[in-house]
Amino acid sequence: MLDQLRSEVLEANLEIVRRGLVLYTFGNASGIDRAAGLVVIKPSGVPYETMKPSDMVVTDLNGKIVEGTLRPSSDLGTHLLLYREFPAIGGVVHTHSEYATSWAQSGREIPPFGTTHADYFYGPVPVTEELTDEEIGSDYVLNTGVAIIRRFQNLDPAAVPGVLVRGHAPFAWGKTPGEAAYNAVVLESIARMAYFTVTLNAACGGVSQALLDRHYFRKHGADATYGQAR
Amino acid sequence: MLDQLRSEVLEANLEIVRRGLVLYTFGNASGIDRAAGLVVIKPSGVPYETMKPSDMVVTDLNGKIVEGTLRPSSDLGTHLLLYREFPAIGGVVHTHSEYATSWAQSGREIPPFGTTHADYFYGPVPVTEELTDEEIGSDYVLNTGVAIIRRFQNLDPAAVPGVLVRGHAPFAWGKTPGEAAYNAVVLESIARMAYFTVTLNAACGGVSQALLDRHYFRKHGADATYGQAR
Amino acid sequence: MLDQLRSEVLEANLEIVRRGLVLYTFGNASGIDRAAGLVVIKPSGVPYETMKPSDMVVTDLNGKIVEGTLRPSSDLGTHLLLYREFPAIGGVVHTHSEYATSWAQSGREIPPFGTTHADYFYGPVPVTEELTDEEIGSDYVLNTGVAIIRRFQNLDPAAVPGVLVRGHAPFAWGKTPGEAAYNAVVLESIARMAYFTVTLNAACGGVSQALLDRHYFRKHGADATYGQAR
Amino acid sequence: MLDQLRSEVLEANLEIVRRGLVLYTFGNASGIDRAAGLVVIKPSGVPYETMKPSDMVVTDLNGKIVEGTLRPSSDLGTHLLLYREFPAIGGVVHTHSEYATSWAQSGREIPPFGTTHADYFYGPVPVTEELTDEEIGSDYVLNTGVAIIRRFQNLDPAAVPGVLVRGHAPFAWGKTPGEAAYNAVVLESIARMAYFTVTLNAACGGVSQALLDRHYFRKHGADATYGQAR
Repeated sequence: MLDQLRSEVLEANLEIVRRGLVLYTFGNASGIDRAAGLVVIKPSGVPYETMKPSDMVVTDLNGKIVEGTLRPSSDLGTHLLLYREFPAIGGVVHTHSEYATSWAQSGREIPPFGTTHADYFYGPVPVTEELTDEEIGSDYVLNTGVAIIRRFQNLDPAAVPGVLVRGHAPFAWGKTPGEAAYNAVVLESIARMAYFTVTLNAACGGVSQALLDRHYFRKHGADATYGQAR
Repeated sequence: MLDQLRSEVLEANLEIVRRGLVLYTFGNASGIDRAAGLVVIKPSGVPYETMKPSDMVVTDLNGKIVEGTLRPSSDLGTHLLLYREFPAIGGVVHTHSEYATSWAQSGREIPPFGTTHADYFYGPVPVTEELTDEEIGSDYVLNTGVAIIRRFQNLDPAAVPGVLVRGHAPFAWGKTPGEAAYNAVVLESIARMAYFTVTLNAACGGVSQALLDRHYFRKHGADATYGQAR
Repeated sequence: MLDQLRSEVLEANLEIVRRGLVLYTFGNASGIDRAAGLVVIKPSGVPYETMKPSDMVVTDLNGKIVEGTLRPSSDLGTHLLLYREFPAIGGVVHTHSEYATSWAQSGREIPPFGTTHADYFYGPVPVTEELTDEEIGSDYVLNTGVAIIRRFQNLDPAAVPGVLVRGHAPFAWGKTPGEAAYNAVVLESIARMAYFTVTLNAACGGVSQALLDRHYFRKHGADATYGQAR
Repeated sequence: MLDQLRSEVLEANLEIVRRGLVLYTFGNASGIDRAAGLVVIKPSGVPYETMKPSDMVVTDLNGKIVEGTLRPSSDLGTHLLLYREFPAIGGVVHTHSEYATSWAQSGREIPPFGTTHADYFYGPVPVTEELTDEEIGSDYVLNTGVAIIRRFQNLDPAAVPGVLVRGHAPFAWGKTPGEAAYNAVVLESIARMAYFTVTLNAACGGVSQALLDRHYFRKHGADATYGQAR
């Protein structure tokens, strides 16, 4: 069971590299085995080219290392909090993909300007508040997750599968590590098009609620009609 | 005959991927056999890497599946209306290519800023009106086509081989699936250069009517001089 | 002798493709044998993938085809005028490379914002005036060259090896077809950086005359010190 | 010992090419053997494709060639001054990477807008003052270094491993040639994201001192926690 998850987590890590979201080692993907309560995550600062499934680090939900000889990603604490607070997610991906990161740096949420966005995010891609100096000075990595959870108090993480951490970069998630990676890739494309859109038309208002509904529910929920029947 | 069309449609689908217009499965190409009244279109949500000619779905002009075991592209209804209303076209391509989509999102038509544009589009690339909530709530995919047809009331689809659906993305077409794909690729390049042009010079007026005529008719119509004699 | 020139012209055509300056067939390179008074140019609208040296078309300086069964590039008339008027050049390249073309479309010359520019262009990259309707309506391709020559009345084509044709695209040249291609590639990079520079700082004044002199003459002229001794 | 350094310097030169920072021959990397007082640098204007370790040029700290038959990079004088003035560095890289160069051309320093920046640069990426006409007219290459040193009077080159030379391009450095190349690549990514950030939000203030501290010291200094224990 964990062998399968290790492979999926490695594959998610490689996918974000192949799609151009990751420079050097600036990204990490993880997955969770909910039954076992175990998280599999990329090791810290190891080159992707030579990474093997057995390099993945296994921890419990409190970050205790259960298997693996390498240090886990330095962002582990954020991943773990997301798994504890968002019970429906099975994978988390963090990157510094350049357009999404630029929106995060600018402190602006990404409005739903079109149907590509509406196909995957049911509303704006939210941006967290700045962390306070105290939050930064104490358990910073955990507090990054705290800022995300705070921002999602009235949001459904299943309908908004990603966030921009202000002054930092995006996190995305999904039901599996593969879906989390997919959402991270889509988020970067959305961020890029939103950048072009606002620089073309600063007053652009975004899609109507009707169009947001139509596209989002075409791909998600019981009545989805996209793709092949499963 | 349909075997040939299936291959052409597959090839058009692969061309838009090779040219970087398609992320994951966000695009679809189709072609029509006018004599048989049959349309060949990409299946919905199937990865391009493994797609075969036999995966293409064949429908009649009302969308009744005639051959194929997979669901057709979810945008089929728009393609079919375009084939019914534009009798001279033989192929349709829809993508979310990022610059053309950004113009569609911004709600701005693309003015003919230069000869690259004039070589292929005899006038601005038009943008549709927003669909009403009623249009979105009823037969949305068909109504996307209706919005395009409405926008082309006084336009010749042979001289303007593409459109921006507001808040959504571009459609392009041509005499064959291959020409539709070619026009989709050219449209993305035109959209990219127009983006740079307006951010360099917001007041840019575009080419003169004389230059538009000269370039358009150099490549199109009975007096075309470009390329090799056929 | 012409065999060698054919190969150089083909290679220059392939170089601008490899460097990403050309979409489909939107570009052409030529070279001249001054002793024989013969020009070798790419055929019109032929795919680059299958082009052979023997596909190149040979014409005299008035455009009379001397060898070759294919039609020459539709821009031949512009190339020929440049060869007649600029006796020191041996190669001409025309592309629709996207950033240089966007400057041409915007009608703005590219100021020397930095040393990359100063290394190759001794002053701004100039932009021609718009062609009149009469010029467009008569011998348009020749008149494109006329507009370039007019713009260079007080400029040295050896020191400014390229131009932006307003509303159209760039032309570049050099002592050989290879150098013309090289200058076209450098021009696109300069155009890209100049675009970022003016959008970062609209009031940017560009380099001093002293820096322009230093960099330009470090790479050109009798006292050049760059590269290996020859 | 010098064989190892030659290979490292060649590898650093190839890395900046692979990462897209270098057009043609517009870049150079060097390394120093502090014990021997010898610098290894790329030759001037030689194509990267065919470069071998034995093509590297070895000079002393005053630029006297000790080994090698090729001319050293024309920027050697700047590298040497950096080695003389910054005793802790072991490698220097100069490129005309397009976003960093555009910031240099615009005359603006790059503020720390996010954690990617803070991970590597402890403060803004500084920009030098313009060189005077006298400095340009005399020993220009040396004076480029002088301008850098002047700008670093109150800065620690270990904490700020790069600079923008106004109207010219970036220099980066590190403890080894490989680290200098790595920092040049990171600088380009930072520059790109900062460009998008300021065009999205011209008033963006950048990260807090607390966040700058947290990220910088997570990767640098005695208490660094990133990567694997060494």
